[in-house]
Amino acid sequence: MKRVSIVGGSGYTGGELLRILLDHPAVEVVQVTSRSRLGEYVYQVHPNLRKRSTLKFTDPDLLEPVDVLFLALPHGQAQHKIEEYAALAPTIIDLSADFRLRDAQAYQVWYKEPHSAPQWLSRFVYGLAELHRPEMSSAHYVSGVGCNATASILALLPLVKSGLLNPESSVIIEIKVGSSEGGAEGNPGSHHPERAHVIRTFSPFGHRHTAEVIQELDLKNVSLTMTSVDLVRGVLATAHATLQPGVATKDLWKAYRAIANENPFIRIVKEQRGIYRVPEPKVLAGSNYADLGFELDESSGHVVAMCAIDNLMKGASGSAVQSMNLMLGLAETTGLDFPGLHPI
Amino acid sequence: MKRVSIVGGSGYTGGELLRILLDHPAVEVVQVTSRSRLGEYVYQVHPNLRKRSTLKFTDPDLLEPVDVLFLALPHGQAQHKIEEYAALAPTIIDLSADFRLRDAQAYQVWYKEPHSAPQWLSRFVYGLAELHRPEMSSAHYVSGVGCNATASILALLPLVKSGLLNPESSVIIEIKVGSSEGGAEGNPGSHHPERAHVIRTFSPFGHRHTAEVIQELDLKNVSLTMTSVDLVRGVLATAHATLQPGVATKDLWKAYRAIANENPFIRIVKEQRGIYRVPEPKVLAGSNYADLGFELDESSGHVVAMCAIDNLMKGASGSAVQSMNLMLGLAETTGLDFPGLHPI
Amino acid sequence: MKRVSIVGGSGYTGGELLRILLDHPAVEVVQVTSRSRLGEYVYQVHPNLRKRSTLKFTDPDLLEPVDVLFLALPHGQAQHKIEEYAALAPTIIDLSADFRLRDAQAYQVWYKEPHSAPQWLSRFVYGLAELHRPEMSSAHYVSGVGCNATASILALLPLVKSGLLNPESSVIIEIKVGSSEGGAEGNPGSHHPERAHVIRTFSPFGHRHTAEVIQELDLKNVSLTMTSVDLVRGVLATAHATLQPGVATKDLWKAYRAIANENPFIRIVKEQRGIYRVPEPKVLAGSNYADLGFELDESSGHVVAMCAIDNLMKGASGSAVQSMNLMLGLAETTGLDFPGLHPI
Amino acid sequence: MKRVSIVGGSGYTGGELLRILLDHPAVEVVQVTSRSRLGEYVYQVHPNLRKRSTLKFTDPDLLEPVDVLFLALPHGQAQHKIEEYAALAPTIIDLSADFRLRDAQAYQVWYKEPHSAPQWLSRFVYGLAELHRPEMSSAHYVSGVGCNATASILALLPLVKSGLLNPESSVIIEIKVGSSEGGAEGNPGSHHPERAHVIRTFSPFGHRHTAEVIQELDLKNVSLTMTSVDLVRGVLATAHATLQPGVATKDLWKAYRAIANENPFIRIVKEQRGIYRVPEPKVLAGSNYADLGFELDESSGHVVAMCAIDNLMKGASGSAVQSMNLMLGLAETTGLDFPGLHPI
Repeated sequence: MKRVSIVGGSGYTGGELLRILLDHPAVEVVQVTSRSRLGEYVYQVHPNLRKRSTLKFTDPDLLEPVDVLFLALPHGQAQHKIEEYAALAPTIIDLSADFRLRDAQAYQVWYKEPHSAPQWLSRFVYGLAELHRPEMSSAHYVSGVGCNATASILALLPLVKSGLLNPESSVIIEIKVGSSEGGAEGNPGSHHPERAHVIRTFSPFGHRHTAEVIQELDLKNVSLTMTSVDLVRGVLATAHATLQPGVATKDLWKAYRAIANENPFIRIVKEQRGIYRVPEPKVLAGSNYADLGFELDESSGHVVAMCAIDNLMKGASGSAVQSMNLMLGLAETTGLDFPGLHPI
Repeated sequence: MKRVSIVGGSGYTGGELLRILLDHPAVEVVQVTSRSRLGEYVYQVHPNLRKRSTLKFTDPDLLEPVDVLFLALPHGQAQHKIEEYAALAPTIIDLSADFRLRDAQAYQVWYKEPHSAPQWLSRFVYGLAELHRPEMSSAHYVSGVGCNATASILALLPLVKSGLLNPESSVIIEIKVGSSEGGAEGNPGSHHPERAHVIRTFSPFGHRHTAEVIQELDLKNVSLTMTSVDLVRGVLATAHATLQPGVATKDLWKAYRAIANENPFIRIVKEQRGIYRVPEPKVLAGSNYADLGFELDESSGHVVAMCAIDNLMKGASGSAVQSMNLMLGLAETTGLDFPGLHPI
Repeated sequence: MKRVSIVGGSGYTGGELLRILLDHPAVEVVQVTSRSRLGEYVYQVHPNLRKRSTLKFTDPDLLEPVDVLFLALPHGQAQHKIEEYAALAPTIIDLSADFRLRDAQAYQVWYKEPHSAPQWLSRFVYGLAELHRPEMSSAHYVSGVGCNATASILALLPLVKSGLLNPESSVIIEIKVGSSEGGAEGNPGSHHPERAHVIRTFSPFGHRHTAEVIQELDLKNVSLTMTSVDLVRGVLATAHATLQPGVATKDLWKAYRAIANENPFIRIVKEQRGIYRVPEPKVLAGSNYADLGFELDESSGHVVAMCAIDNLMKGASGSAVQSMNLMLGLAETTGLDFPGLHPI
Repeated sequence: MKRVSIVGGSGYTGGELLRILLDHPAVEVVQVTSRSRLGEYVYQVHPNLRKRSTLKFTDPDLLEPVDVLFLALPHGQAQHKIEEYAALAPTIIDLSADFRLRDAQAYQVWYKEPHSAPQWLSRFVYGLAELHRPEMSSAHYVSGVGCNATASILALLPLVKSGLLNPESSVIIEIKVGSSEGGAEGNPGSHHPERAHVIRTFSPFGHRHTAEVIQELDLKNVSLTMTSVDLVRGVLATAHATLQPGVATKDLWKAYRAIANENPFIRIVKEQRGIYRVPEPKVLAGSNYADLGFELDESSGHVVAMCAIDNLMKGASGSAVQSMNLMLGLAETTGLDFPGLHPI
């Protein structure tokens, strides 16, 4: 049993990590820290864990050495203490945005402030197993993933990897998100009477997760447009792009099947009839699957590529545990077998 | 045209008042005050009013004399300045809880502090036209109504007024409410991921609106149980009581029809088939109707009496304007003719 | 008072028409037909109309002559009986898709069957006052509008009319829709456990409303991608396009202000701060407004243009009544003054 | 590994059973039948099972002998073929209402038709482990449970078992339910525009599940009032009753703790502060927990007792698997360890 701790365990990401790790057969949760909820039982903050754990939140300044440290702090904090954390654990997975970008310049452009530990950027592997499985087996440090970046990257992955995407194509990604993406702290816009029933395009351009898509897929002309809808968990990315001339639907099927075969958490959802013809996030709540779909207008080469995920699982804590499994040499799917619910 | 102003216009109740009054044919809105949103256009706070009004929020300390003053302040404020308000307008309608109870002792019991203007309590008429229509025509001061009290009172009104209710009966009122009842200010429990999809019995006993039901219906053994559900606007009160021995369903029909005939905003919803057989708040959003229904177990005398309202309309601002109409000698329904939407 | 009737009054569009017309100061509703609900009170099908109308659904084969006839039948029916209807009323507004396209060939392409009254196509004016106000004052026949077409057309109108849109630009329109768009008849995908909480891209390409956007804006390279979200009423169109080189945000402001000034139901929603910075359909339920917004990446010329409407109002019945007002020489906004609710 | 089959696997209850059993460590799913979806992959009907199972629905007339047979048919069917099923498997769990009542007379009263296999009623144990754990270890036949009955019974269980309930007390149980309770087949009232946002008291009296509460708790004066709210999974029962004179809150704590200690799936939710102070179904989706809470007015003896469950789990398939575990001598919680999600 590996000993693991979670730093910053009172947010939604921390809670989801804890849910997974408490039932993970190869690890034991040693500490979960929270400055604001110090001393409270974890189930008082994560009510689904009642009768499942008698852990209490501990002081983040009193961390014990462990085998694996998960950092689930708000963005901008982990980079200031990464040396301390590294002294406590040989394996670190940081779910924040602090170590996702490889280039300190890019970090400054997108996050509007200099990175405080730029020398650490190259030590981290970007935390998406579908892109970096080989590196993860020997990595000590893996970053988190942006949930919108994950949905975007996986929507495009079959097109990019197969070389079917026209390299000159602009890529417009329309992303619809649920409210848990904003985290556990409320704001005026998350007040239920204001947030319920919205279709709110809160970010037409310039969302920070764009930087991850550019970096990981080596694309240039990409934009993410973010729209909030009435849902708690879930992201759907609908990407519009142009393929190489002459590409047919059967070529895409081949590209998608290759990706689905290589990756245990990738599924293709493309049915001719019935209710469940396209990827939908609602059926993924709690699961680590990424469901992919596509539709091609062969005459114009315009492809619509879709990816649905649970932002707290594949888009955050699920991918983090998947990375841990690979780093520890465990089966990639260990502890991540919940298939999701239907109906929900 | 009567000149009216709204004190405390940035909350949900103030916004709803403003929406009604801007289209009311017999009044002109002079001022809408807000300390926190001072100087902003009203449509920046109430986005439905964009292109409908160029009013800006004014300083509550710079009120002009008007014909009618609506007070839409948080509970506990109006009682401290009621003398000042009375010097500015001959007609005052206070939507807060400050002047709903006639008895200063009862106020202290339910609101846990002494009333600061007890001599004013007897000058106010309780603001439900269905109970106090005659007094309103000569009243200068009318209180608001509690939304849950309104739903409870109207659910029981046909039973009480007809004398069919067994005076020994305990009355259990189960109330389901939407999120707008909590007002425009957020709190941890109103954060969308926490508030969406709830069925949360947040107050099994002791809700303050109970005092209004006791006072207005002269009942003794009444309890209100409050449960939040996933809806923005709307209250459904489901009351359980015991009738006098031998009462039959046809007697109830007679009692309900009498109430519906006397009151323009009371409707009976009791159909044998179809989807719309019972009162439902969703169809009432924006309307001033109170929909009543009932079901009787003749063998036991157990009656289930229902009332659905929009908490911001019949449960607050709609009743306030209905009171104003009566106080000004206008037709009771003036400005309150929006029938609600379907579907919604 | 003009005498008006509604053919096909039991659907959502018919119900919304009826709600508007019952309170419209210049018309009297004579008949509302429904074969399936024949003889029932209209409020048994449209529960918001209880206590508002004692009309009953009448036989569609027993229509009386009137001044204005609204046809709210399922698509494909009106074209077969248009001669009969024309014999009954000098003014006809058909809300179906039957007479929206001017070109019988285009109709066949998009609707997969030949039009049965092609000679009538040129007699109809497309029913969007913002495009055809002058023609409407002398028109006898006006078509309905597709709700998604309306949102798309109005989102792009300032760009097209000002000439700022690059004529070579492809236009990708992502449309998010509520469930009422599917009509009052259920299907397996509209069953609440299946339809609640969805983000379902049910039509990546080829939606029939595309034909209306092409026709009315004279654009070539346009695609509509349709995604269902959890909402009952509302459409948000988010259009992506490329502008002429050198266009700046201030040029767009000018173009949008011109459109908003010319059209009483067009509003610009583009705020720097607060919750209500962009167009959102939820605040439009029951209102005839179309709220427009935009964001421009000046460096690339990529514009994101948004339009929010209530699909049953501006996207159907509201536009139909707006057309009637113009056809009858009434003020354009008559009977359409409900501003929408907040919160909701 | 025990071999199990599911008869009637295309409904929501059958899908939930299948989800649990596919990951259950002690069983192997042999057949899942469906006449209407014959030959389709189970994941085409239960989309969460994609990539989890390659089972196809088989013909219900071609059942193989197995160790355990789950019957998940619509009510009224299993009783006609129970002899056939019994010939195929030594252990049968029937999730329908057919074998829940012990008394054929009572069945006829509540289900309005005679039972067709009355001699089998006494062979079945009512399928709630919290009531019948000892009998289950030797039972061959266990019934399902009504979801509303389960929530009602468990809400009252600590009061009844401790003897604190006043035997003369009437018991009024207000139940709020999500839409999945109605099953996978749609109806006019389940069409999303009609079902979304409802608070609809569809059954004030006389719900069939009342019979189970009466039978299992030996209560006389019990009524269930059913209200639909906007949620897919979940039931909250709020029961009102009167306790024996002199009972104090501390006595209730003792009674509740005893029940929670004896039963692995019973939790007490009663906190003084925070958001999660009372039982709420939303946090239980997918879990087999029943969360109990209570509030007592010591002066009157009026107790409000609450129970929240997932209607498809503890209220149906979860309890059925829990019963199977006990019948097979397995640990009671086997395969039922999913704790639920937060937020959701």
